[in-house]
Amino acid sequence: MLFSFELHATDGQARAGVFHTAHGPLPTPIYAPVGTQATVKAVTPQQLREVGAVLLLANTYHLYLRPGDERIAALGGLHRFMGWEGPLLTDSGGFQVFSMSGGRGQTPLRAIDDDGVTFRSHIDGSRHRFTPERVIEIEQNLGADIAMVLDECAPPTDYDYNVRALARTHAWAERCKAVHTRADQALFGIVQGGIFPELREQSARFLSALDFPGYAIGGLSVGETKAQMYATLDVTVPLLPEHKPRYLMGVGTPEDLVEGIARGIDIFDCVLPTRVARNGQALSRTGKLNMRNARFADDPTPLDATCACYACQHFSRAYIRHLFIAQEILGATLLTIHNLHTMLTIIRESRTAILTGTFAAYRTAFWEAREEVDGRQ
Amino acid sequence: MLFSFELHATDGQARAGVFHTAHGPLPTPIYAPVGTQATVKAVTPQQLREVGAVLLLANTYHLYLRPGDERIAALGGLHRFMGWEGPLLTDSGGFQVFSMSGGRGQTPLRAIDDDGVTFRSHIDGSRHRFTPERVIEIEQNLGADIAMVLDECAPPTDYDYNVRALARTHAWAERCKAVHTRADQALFGIVQGGIFPELREQSARFLSALDFPGYAIGGLSVGETKAQMYATLDVTVPLLPEHKPRYLMGVGTPEDLVEGIARGIDIFDCVLPTRVARNGQALSRTGKLNMRNARFADDPTPLDATCACYACQHFSRAYIRHLFIAQEILGATLLTIHNLHTMLTIIRESRTAILTGTFAAYRTAFWEAREEVDGRQ
Repeated sequence: MLFSFELHATDGQARAGVFHTAHGPLPTPIYAPVGTQATVKAVTPQQLREVGAVLLLANTYHLYLRPGDERIAALGGLHRFMGWEGPLLTDSGGFQVFSMSGGRGQTPLRAIDDDGVTFRSHIDGSRHRFTPERVIEIEQNLGADIAMVLDECAPPTDYDYNVRALARTHAWAERCKAVHTRADQALFGIVQGGIFPELREQSARFLSALDFPGYAIGGLSVGETKAQMYATLDVTVPLLPEHKPRYLMGVGTPEDLVEGIARGIDIFDCVLPTRVARNGQALSRTGKLNMRNARFADDPTPLDATCACYACQHFSRAYIRHLFIAQEILGATLLTIHNLHTMLTIIRESRTAILTGTFAAYRTAFWEAREEVDGRQ
Repeated sequence: MLFSFELHATDGQARAGVFHTAHGPLPTPIYAPVGTQATVKAVTPQQLREVGAVLLLANTYHLYLRPGDERIAALGGLHRFMGWEGPLLTDSGGFQVFSMSGGRGQTPLRAIDDDGVTFRSHIDGSRHRFTPERVIEIEQNLGADIAMVLDECAPPTDYDYNVRALARTHAWAERCKAVHTRADQALFGIVQGGIFPELREQSARFLSALDFPGYAIGGLSVGETKAQMYATLDVTVPLLPEHKPRYLMGVGTPEDLVEGIARGIDIFDCVLPTRVARNGQALSRTGKLNMRNARFADDPTPLDATCACYACQHFSRAYIRHLFIAQEILGATLLTIHNLHTMLTIIRESRTAILTGTFAAYRTAFWEAREEVDGRQ
C-alpha cells in the first residue's frame, strides 16, 4: 500500500524496513544524495544508479526560484525534469530561508512572523514569501514522493528561541497538513526542539497526534556537538510512532550514518559527501583523504583498496590528484561517485547486518577500524 | 600487423579503412575527442566509450608540464594513468608553444631557433625547452599509440614565414624520426606549408620520402578561410602515400568532417565540440543551439529528436537550459556527451556510406539538410 512502512527486522534500536512510494519501494535505512538544483552536482542519474542511490533530495527553495515550480509541473514534474525514475524527496525550503543572515551592511534577507516568512532571493534580491500553504503548493507542483512541512529552524542550544519556534512549527505543521492533497506524495512532519529533551518530547507528541506518514527530526547538525546530537536522538526517536519512517534531516557523515541507524533512524540526507568531493576530499569508512595533497602525486593505488566503485576500479590516487591540481571536472565527478558509493555501501551493509541480527558487531567493527587507522596516523 | 593500414573501400577521394595499433584496431575515418590534460573535460572514459569514441588525443605540452611525462611513465604510461584502454594520440606540443604570444607588457613567452624552442610555462612562468629529440623523449614516456613530430606552425597565409618554417619542420621531422625507438608507437610526419600549393607539395614529397607510418596535415583551421582550407586539402592529400593514414590536425566541425572525408582525410581531432559544450552550445548535423537561450526554458523536447545519445534520450532542452543557467556541471557533461555523439555518428555514417559506395549521396543530403534548416531560420 502506498506509503506503508514494513518493518522487516529490528536489532536493538536499529531497524530495517521498506517504505512504499509511487516511484518504487524504498529500502531503509537509506541515505539520500542531495540534488539541490534538480541535479546531484557533477554526476548523471545513470552514475547515481550505478553507485546504488535509491532516493534523492531536491531543495524546494532553489527550484522555486529557478527554474520555478510551475515550470517544472508543466514539464511533467520533478522526476521527469531531472530524469530520475526512483523516489524523490523535497524539503520545505524553510532551512534555506532561515539560514540567511544577510551579509555585513546588507538589508536582512528575511523577516519571520506567525503567518510565514518573507525573504530575498539569493539570485536577484527579489522579495518572496513562504507560508505553510504556499510551500505545500510548491512542493505539490514539484511532485516528489516525500514532501516536508514548513518548520522554523532555531539555533539548537537557544532554549527561549526554541520554545517560540516550536509553537510556530506546530501551527505550521497543522496548516501544511490541512492543505496537502496529493495522494501520490507523503507529507512528513518535522520534530523540532533543539537539544532540549522536554521540547523534543512535546514536539514528538504533538506531531504524532497529527498522524503523518513519516517523521523527520530537524534542527540537528547545525551547531550542537555530536554528543548533544546523539543524546537528542536517544530521547526523541523512542517517542516517534514505531510504524512510520524516521528521517534525520541534513545528517551526515559515515559515522553519523552508523550512529543514527543505531538510534533507530531510517532515512538520512546530507550534502557533505558530494560537497567535500568537489573540494578534493575522499571519504572512506575509516576517515578521509585530501586528494590535493602532494603525497599522492606518485601513488598508483586506488582511493580505497576495499572499494568497488568506478573511481576505485579504474583510477589511481595520482591521477585523481592530477585532476584536482589541473582543475578538471572529472576529479569532482570521480570523488562524488566514490563518496556516494562509500555512504551507500555503509547503508547497505548496515541493513544487511540488521536483517541478520549482527548490527551491534558491525557498529563495533566500524569504530575499531577507524581507531586503528587513527592510531597509525 | 602493427601500424598497417588496410583500405577497405574508397568512394571518390573518401576512404574507409582500419589502422592497427597496440591498443586495438582504429576504424577510419575517425574523429578523436581531445583530452588535453589526460581527461576529456566533463566526461568519464565510460561515457566516452558509450558515445562511440575509439581514439583520444592528449596534449604533450600540458602533460609534460603537469603532472610530468616521467611521472606518467612511472605510473605505467598514459593509457593506465587516464584509464583509457583504446588507442591514444599525442601531439608534439609545438602548436601550444608556438601559439603563445606573451600578453601585453610581458616578456615574450617563446624563442625559436633552428635547434628548438624555449618557452615559459603558462602555469608558473618557468623556462623550458623543446627540441625534436626532447619531444620524442616526452612522447615516448607518455606512450600513446600515435605520436607526432615537432613542427613549426606558421601563420597559414604568410608565404615568407612558411618558407622558413618549412625548412625547420623538415629538419626536425628527420631528427624526430632518428631518435624515435618505441616499437608500439607510430610516429607521424606533419606536412606544413600554409595555404601555398607549391610549399605543401614540397612538404608532402619531402616527408613521404621519410616513410612515416602516417601523415598529418598541419597548420590549417588557424586563420585561413574554409575555402582556403579545402583548396589546400585538394592539392595536398593526393600527394600523400595512399596506404598510410592521413590526419587533419585540429579540425573540425560537423561540416569539416564531411568535407575532410570527401577529400581523403582518415583522422580528425578537434577541441571545438567539447569546448563549445561547456559554453552551452549543442551541435547537430544541421547546425547549433545556444542552450542558454530563453526560448528553451519551457521546451520539453530533446536537444535533437534524431539523436540516440544519453542526453537526448533522458533530458529536455528545458532541463539542460536550467543546468546552464544554474551553473551546474551536469550541463557541461550532457552537452559534451551529445556533441561527441553527434561527431562520432557523422563519422560512423560516413564510413558506412563509403563502404556501400554512397558517400556522395550522404554528403549531398548532409548539406541539403543544413540548407533546409538555414532556410527556415
